[in-house]
Amino acid sequence: MIKSPPHRPPRSLWPRSNETSHRAIPPLAPGDIRIIPLGGVEEIGKNMTAIEMDGDIMVIDIGFAFPDEETPGIDYIIPDTTYLEENKARVRGVVITHGHLDHTGGIPYIMPKIGNPPLYTRNLTALMIKKRQEEFPHFPPLDVIVVEKEERVKIGNFRVRFFGVTHTIPDSMGIIIETPYGRIVNPGDYKLDLDAVDGKPTVAEEKSYSLFDEGETLLLMADSTNIENPGFSPPESEVHKNLANIIKTVKGRLIIGMFASQFERIIKVLEIVEALGRKIVIEGRSMKTNIEVAQLAGLFKVKKETIIPVQEVDQYPPEKIVVLATGAQGEEFAALMRMATKQHKHFQFRKGDTVLLSSSIIPGNERTVQRLKDNIARQGAQIIHYRTSEVFIHSSGHGNRGEIEWLHRKVKPHFFIPIHGYHQKLRVHADLAMEIGLPEKNIVVPDNGMVIEITGKGKKIQALKETASSRLVMVDSSGADNVKEVVIKDRVMLAQEGIFVIIAIINQQTGKIIRSPDIISRGFVYLKESQDLLHHVRVMAKRKIEEATARMNPINFDYVKNLLREEIGKYLFQKTHSRPLVLPVLIEV
Amino acid sequence: MIKSPPHRPPRSLWPRSNETSHRAIPPLAPGDIRIIPLGGVEEIGKNMTAIEMDGDIMVIDIGFAFPDEETPGIDYIIPDTTYLEENKARVRGVVITHGHLDHTGGIPYIMPKIGNPPLYTRNLTALMIKKRQEEFPHFPPLDVIVVEKEERVKIGNFRVRFFGVTHTIPDSMGIIIETPYGRIVNPGDYKLDLDAVDGKPTVAEEKSYSLFDEGETLLLMADSTNIENPGFSPPESEVHKNLANIIKTVKGRLIIGMFASQFERIIKVLEIVEALGRKIVIEGRSMKTNIEVAQLAGLFKVKKETIIPVQEVDQYPPEKIVVLATGAQGEEFAALMRMATKQHKHFQFRKGDTVLLSSSIIPGNERTVQRLKDNIARQGAQIIHYRTSEVFIHSSGHGNRGEIEWLHRKVKPHFFIPIHGYHQKLRVHADLAMEIGLPEKNIVVPDNGMVIEITGKGKKIQALKETASSRLVMVDSSGADNVKEVVIKDRVMLAQEGIFVIIAIINQQTGKIIRSPDIISRGFVYLKESQDLLHHVRVMAKRKIEEATARMNPINFDYVKNLLREEIGKYLFQKTHSRPLVLPVLIEV
Repeated sequence: MIKSPPHRPPRSLWPRSNETSHRAIPPLAPGDIRIIPLGGVEEIGKNMTAIEMDGDIMVIDIGFAFPDEETPGIDYIIPDTTYLEENKARVRGVVITHGHLDHTGGIPYIMPKIGNPPLYTRNLTALMIKKRQEEFPHFPPLDVIVVEKEERVKIGNFRVRFFGVTHTIPDSMGIIIETPYGRIVNPGDYKLDLDAVDGKPTVAEEKSYSLFDEGETLLLMADSTNIENPGFSPPESEVHKNLANIIKTVKGRLIIGMFASQFERIIKVLEIVEALGRKIVIEGRSMKTNIEVAQLAGLFKVKKETIIPVQEVDQYPPEKIVVLATGAQGEEFAALMRMATKQHKHFQFRKGDTVLLSSSIIPGNERTVQRLKDNIARQGAQIIHYRTSEVFIHSSGHGNRGEIEWLHRKVKPHFFIPIHGYHQKLRVHADLAMEIGLPEKNIVVPDNGMVIEITGKGKKIQALKETASSRLVMVDSSGADNVKEVVIKDRVMLAQEGIFVIIAIINQQTGKIIRSPDIISRGFVYLKESQDLLHHVRVMAKRKIEEATARMNPINFDYVKNLLREEIGKYLFQKTHSRPLVLPVLIEV
Repeated sequence: MIKSPPHRPPRSLWPRSNETSHRAIPPLAPGDIRIIPLGGVEEIGKNMTAIEMDGDIMVIDIGFAFPDEETPGIDYIIPDTTYLEENKARVRGVVITHGHLDHTGGIPYIMPKIGNPPLYTRNLTALMIKKRQEEFPHFPPLDVIVVEKEERVKIGNFRVRFFGVTHTIPDSMGIIIETPYGRIVNPGDYKLDLDAVDGKPTVAEEKSYSLFDEGETLLLMADSTNIENPGFSPPESEVHKNLANIIKTVKGRLIIGMFASQFERIIKVLEIVEALGRKIVIEGRSMKTNIEVAQLAGLFKVKKETIIPVQEVDQYPPEKIVVLATGAQGEEFAALMRMATKQHKHFQFRKGDTVLLSSSIIPGNERTVQRLKDNIARQGAQIIHYRTSEVFIHSSGHGNRGEIEWLHRKVKPHFFIPIHGYHQKLRVHADLAMEIGLPEKNIVVPDNGMVIEITGKGKKIQALKETASSRLVMVDSSGADNVKEVVIKDRVMLAQEGIFVIIAIINQQTGKIIRSPDIISRGFVYLKESQDLLHHVRVMAKRKIEEATARMNPINFDYVKNLLREEIGKYLFQKTHSRPLVLPVLIEV
């Protein structure tokens, strides 16, 4: 059996995160190793793992996740770091594998809570983290230590080394923790750099991973994002080649939408445009920021006149213009959607334009992407999308099943914990590890907050019954990370059925109601057309209150409120089949 | 240029449906033909088209659409039939192409509003419509006329004939209206029945369409759903073969999730199970109803003992059990999700079970389907899904681009209106028609409510400036179809930021406030931890009210309320960066 905590309840639709009481976690025995995935193993996003040994704790990645329809009005969801906060004196350092927000987004909010320990990462990642930190001037400065991919560092008692991996952003690295029982390996997000001719990993790639040819790997923790995609992922170099062809051959203006996080592809597009002597417009704040950081990191050089401001776009013939824009997910206020809905001050689509959406659709965004495409099509522009393009114009930064299997065979771990992805994907990843030959007892499929220990001098792996807190920690637009689940549940409920407030003023002497009760309602029924209904509720409320208070001295307000809530709720349901949130307000004067 | 109304504003994110004033539509000139797509051309779902000629109107299909994140708390969206209601004396009949809800769902709500005209359809569709109508005993009975696929009928002045098409439900048909200028053709939802050996349409299929070999087609209106999928769709027969293999070879219990609307596949599964001497459990109300109707229609015979109640499932060895269940989209209360979350009384997943999800994911449902898979995986069952299966275990009922092109070449229309699908899909379909050789001026890409006319004895097609009303008509759980957009907008707003009600009682003599104002808030901040904020708002409100009323006699309540709304809103935004709906209630005593 793959281990799961024995009586874990099935994940219900709501709340998403378990709220089992987190029992006191026993102290770790000397020589044992503890691994707590704090995020990223029941979702895509908010990747974070804590590792503990000999009294010290280190952390790998601090990401955030974006909200969904169950968490309206929220900006981000960050990992629950209660365990680290309670043990912050022992947190010796944080290592960040690469600069994407699902690995860095939680840094500003979480670092102050866990004692602001030293943060180790490579150059570009460091620049990106520092750039973002400027938006949080009220937080203490970060202690960022820039490392190189083949460096070794000591983080508390941990002996840590790094290795380069291929991803869609430069300076991505994997992490190795050397223990007396063998290595703990976390490659971060990775794919393989494949040779376009023979489809095998390139020489450089083989060299990066050659360090695994010797020595023992105790534990592998690895990405499960694309475990269900068969074979190898299309090489990014092929995407680059195809983009170059399209840029060369397309007639009219070419607008390319992609994630601002696709550093390598952005740089490639800039190089192609410059080589062709064309002009490029950069639209979208995150795209501009990332290009700025990439230049700061010395990742590319482009002539000053190649990048032009959007205001100058009409000064050049259409076929000279490439626009690089954010918003390929159909985000409401991003550059592409503003252009498509004529909300953009300086740029509108028109017949003759070609829009190339060089990105996949994040699950849940299908409808907004379709809306974006509809709006673009309405302006007469042609659309090339990765799903319908005959050639690859997008490739994921996460390896497919073939690459994942390659990693397992290379690293040959003794124990395995699948990370990064929904529960079912982790299970499929665990099945792969078993197919390759790992016994089931050597695998733990984790949940957020699961406390996994390697005991007996590296002989055994198991999950404790006790779990670390893994509640939803939500950040709203004020930057506060204390949005309560109850508030979010109320929002979800309000969205379904609305709210119905009835206000009655009671004379404390007589128990009688002064004037007819007031009703405030939103999101329930159209009030103007429901005057009869409201009238009946007022009459009923008056009668119920006065019947109840006639027998009371003093008035038991809670009793009367509950009675009203129930009776009005029942009545409204009878009449409308809706169950709005009924809130009676009784005021004594 | 493809014609669109000249000054149509771009579709903004909200409201989805245009609210342009619908100017009086001029009467139709004798001999001209008017086509009004009332639904289904800016979305997937709620398909409905009105056709008008020589004073008479006929309707093709009356579907509904499901709500999305922009229409919370709604059950269905139905077409806006204002135009037909205003002209109901001239509506001579309705033809329904097949029994799927995106073509029939609006019938109970809309038929009474358009004069309950005769409804023409084939046998299974008629049975399904009547079955559903039983849920609406308060509506007048429908006048259903059962037709056969090669029949001809007169509907008012319209000469109408039918032809059989291949879809995932039996008794699907296409419609032909014979006009003096040639046929108007609407094949409904269709794919081609392809020969497994040579990949060409079967003899039966060629025969169905052979009627187009002669005569002229004035206008084709055709489905655009899968226009972006290249080639031909996998034949349903191949899916059946693969399902048979899986049923035969899988060890342990097999649970198959699919749409209840997949009649042909459901029947096939029943036949396979019976032939193997196994037992089948049917779970989900719509699945049970549809199987009942299919038996009533004589579509299949199955021995009584083949279908067993779910309570008896443990009386047979696991390998004898097949379960057919609804809920493959991850719907919260459907059979599969209840089984996966241990909410089902009689059936739970366990290790050794295999779950086969024989359906695509409807855009927007990716996250709920992932949640379903996570919950199933947690119970230890294996999952086979169409996206990751090595063989086809699902095929759409809508033809791919290859089939659509085949239809165009077969029908050779003079004019073309793409229908069924999002705007961008219709555009791609229009592009296909042009590639095949149709001039751009012979194509109109419609919006819901667009009034398209064929004039000059079939010589010209164009859209009028005037449009028919095409607002969102929303049906809620009470069955009322008058849910107002303002209510839905309130819900969307409440979901984002919550509500903040402040209640102050004012002494009408003095203008002073009696006791401190009361505050009711939901979905905004966690009240228990926001006592300071609430205190400040109370103090501020008291001061603002009394400052304002001190100068007034009588008190201008609207002025004071607006002042409070603004000041409190500003203050709350400063403190929390949220903008809840602020509702001041002032009560004079």
